[in-house]
Amino acid sequence: MTAFPPIERDDWLGAPEGLRLAEGGSVTTPEGYAAAGVASGAKTDRDARDIGILMSTRPNVAALVDTVNALPSVPVKLNRTRDRRAFRAVLVNASKANAATGAAGREDALAMLARAAENLDVPVEQIAACSTGTIGERIDLDLALPGIDAAAAGLAQDGGPAFAEAICTTDRAPKTGAFTLDLPGGAVRIGIAAKGAGMIRPTMATMLAFVTTDAALVVEDLQAAAADAAAASFNRISVDGQMSPSDTLLVLANGQGDPLEGEDLAAFRDALAAVCRWAAIQMVKDGEGAEHAVRVRVEAARDADEAERVARAVGDSPLVKTALFGRDPNWGRISQAVGAALARTPGVPADLAVAIDGAGLSDPAAGAAMEKAEYDITVRLGRGVAAYDLWACDLGQAYVSLNAEYHT
Amino acid sequence: MTAFPPIERDDWLGAPEGLRLAEGGSVTTPEGYAAAGVASGAKTDRDARDIGILMSTRPNVAALVDTVNALPSVPVKLNRTRDRRAFRAVLVNASKANAATGAAGREDALAMLARAAENLDVPVEQIAACSTGTIGERIDLDLALPGIDAAAAGLAQDGGPAFAEAICTTDRAPKTGAFTLDLPGGAVRIGIAAKGAGMIRPTMATMLAFVTTDAALVVEDLQAAAADAAAASFNRISVDGQMSPSDTLLVLANGQGDPLEGEDLAAFRDALAAVCRWAAIQMVKDGEGAEHAVRVRVEAARDADEAERVARAVGDSPLVKTALFGRDPNWGRISQAVGAALARTPGVPADLAVAIDGAGLSDPAAGAAMEKAEYDITVRLGRGVAAYDLWACDLGQAYVSLNAEYHT
Repeated sequence: MTAFPPIERDDWLGAPEGLRLAEGGSVTTPEGYAAAGVASGAKTDRDARDIGILMSTRPNVAALVDTVNALPSVPVKLNRTRDRRAFRAVLVNASKANAATGAAGREDALAMLARAAENLDVPVEQIAACSTGTIGERIDLDLALPGIDAAAAGLAQDGGPAFAEAICTTDRAPKTGAFTLDLPGGAVRIGIAAKGAGMIRPTMATMLAFVTTDAALVVEDLQAAAADAAAASFNRISVDGQMSPSDTLLVLANGQGDPLEGEDLAAFRDALAAVCRWAAIQMVKDGEGAEHAVRVRVEAARDADEAERVARAVGDSPLVKTALFGRDPNWGRISQAVGAALARTPGVPADLAVAIDGAGLSDPAAGAAMEKAEYDITVRLGRGVAAYDLWACDLGQAYVSLNAEYHT
Repeated sequence: MTAFPPIERDDWLGAPEGLRLAEGGSVTTPEGYAAAGVASGAKTDRDARDIGILMSTRPNVAALVDTVNALPSVPVKLNRTRDRRAFRAVLVNASKANAATGAAGREDALAMLARAAENLDVPVEQIAACSTGTIGERIDLDLALPGIDAAAAGLAQDGGPAFAEAICTTDRAPKTGAFTLDLPGGAVRIGIAAKGAGMIRPTMATMLAFVTTDAALVVEDLQAAAADAAAASFNRISVDGQMSPSDTLLVLANGQGDPLEGEDLAAFRDALAAVCRWAAIQMVKDGEGAEHAVRVRVEAARDADEAERVARAVGDSPLVKTALFGRDPNWGRISQAVGAALARTPGVPADLAVAIDGAGLSDPAAGAAMEKAEYDITVRLGRGVAAYDLWACDLGQAYVSLNAEYHT
């Protein structure tokens, strides 16, 4: 698979000082990890990797954040019965989401985890399960179980890129890489492998992200950092307002020294959020037919809830998204979305200040900025001091084609 | 303009006994109304009617329901400064929405109303104003004022069809007709002229509906009936989740006898709701590229709010709407939308009962039903007894084309 185009707008990441991209990195760039990705034959291209295993090869702590969808997939429900702090490894299959498969789906997931546990010599309850692909269809164990054997046998310190490929479904490319964070006590590394496309696809809508680090963290600090990072990244991308039953972020930390604290911990938290944002924005850019990634910045809102509500109304609006696709600096469509989000709230300003990369919508510079692959839409409400950033993409014909022509 | 195809599913209207469609009817079918529609040259087709006037020729009462969008158009704001119970007439222009036009737009609206008042010999504050069309552009008074003169001069008892044409923008056809309601005290008539398209268009998103009746009503009863009718019709159509700054429903009642009460009043209220639903469903069917009108019925919800939330999540979901366009009975997409709507609520059932015209999604009859122009999607939550109906349409490529290629 081809590499993903780099993000031009570095300022979107909010990276702390000392965070640098490690060229050619992956989830196995941090010390003490092994990974593999193999083809079991479950994807349409039977030679494409579809089973991935990632594990820490030394003691670690873990954190997990999953979907708020009220009808979660079998693996999400299964992971919730485990102690998420104790996950050492993750088993991923990409082709069937194992959602809406009932008791049989649960048996399938347990059989796969048992096979992985046996191969890896890790207790079954320390292996997280993630499935992505079509909803309502069972995983073919005749393919998956030998695939798990092969993946376990192939685990390697340079297996990160293969793992990143194995977790993808309709992604144009995996969102994967590694970063180095310089800290006074020495550098630590953070790797990520993520999948998911900006315009969520048919029944393959899942966002999965796996983060590895060789930083040492107290497990409670890791969980808090993971929750904050998800809120600042994957929860801030507006695709089509749809929510997968399988979304999962798993973070493994296996540093062996003294746990990070104080400023070092704060820098790590910022770095984790920036790394997750880096992957999340790539998801936005991976929309079928999407030509633009846009940061919707709502400023001067009354409170954080209002700022987020307005940002989502703008970022999810099909009228705004088709205008972005048409490179049309259309005040009416943005105003319509803002007005709807603020319905029934008093004191709405008569005029909004809307700008595209700093230019007012009647300024030709705004139209020119809309030709770019990445730009800002800023909406100032003039009601207070709260703000919210959201990343969204445009909506083109290809989204409809793909989603209408894909049948279960 | 061609007539709109009839609604096949009579049961969708919920019409009371004694309500019959009057062939060839319009807003001037009830007694005591005059209307006109003329071309002032403001539409792209300069010969298309674009200025409409409708008035009661005898004493009447009125009710008005308008948008909850927090950034309403100039005419909506102006109407709110008047006594809505006293409106005798309405002046409509179709081409510019007169929204986001500021103080100049207000002066334009006042000048147009003054011209109408002079022509009609009606106090200016008794004329409601409605504008529909592009946002952010001023009305050309050099065209509009002579147009108002011509419309006023042309007011006629058979002017209903011309008025219905004049209020349209991108509508394939006006939604207009008249009904007779048999009551023990004699028949009354209800006429309607409405505009708006199922898939809301660029900056011409407005829903406008004007209802006339020669029934006699106490003004408070009329206002309550109008509010209920809007809630049961125009507020139950899911287009693309977008909300116009101009939406308005105006109801005029000019019966001269004893006001309706008791069972007669109840029948009238049901009839008004059915007539509004008749027009609202035509809006759903008028979506650019939409091939299906679908009733989303949510049943067995905990409470009315939950039922509505789930129905809107399903009806607004681009993944569901593209599946409808593709005639794909896709359980995963409906379940995904329901799960998102129920996020963070406890006690969600593991399995949903979803049916298309009564057939489960794996039943070939469900796929066959999806070929029809009109069908039901029923979602049973198994959590309580509350229900909600919403009408939605599918999402095809034409929606994107029209909205991306239309520039302000």
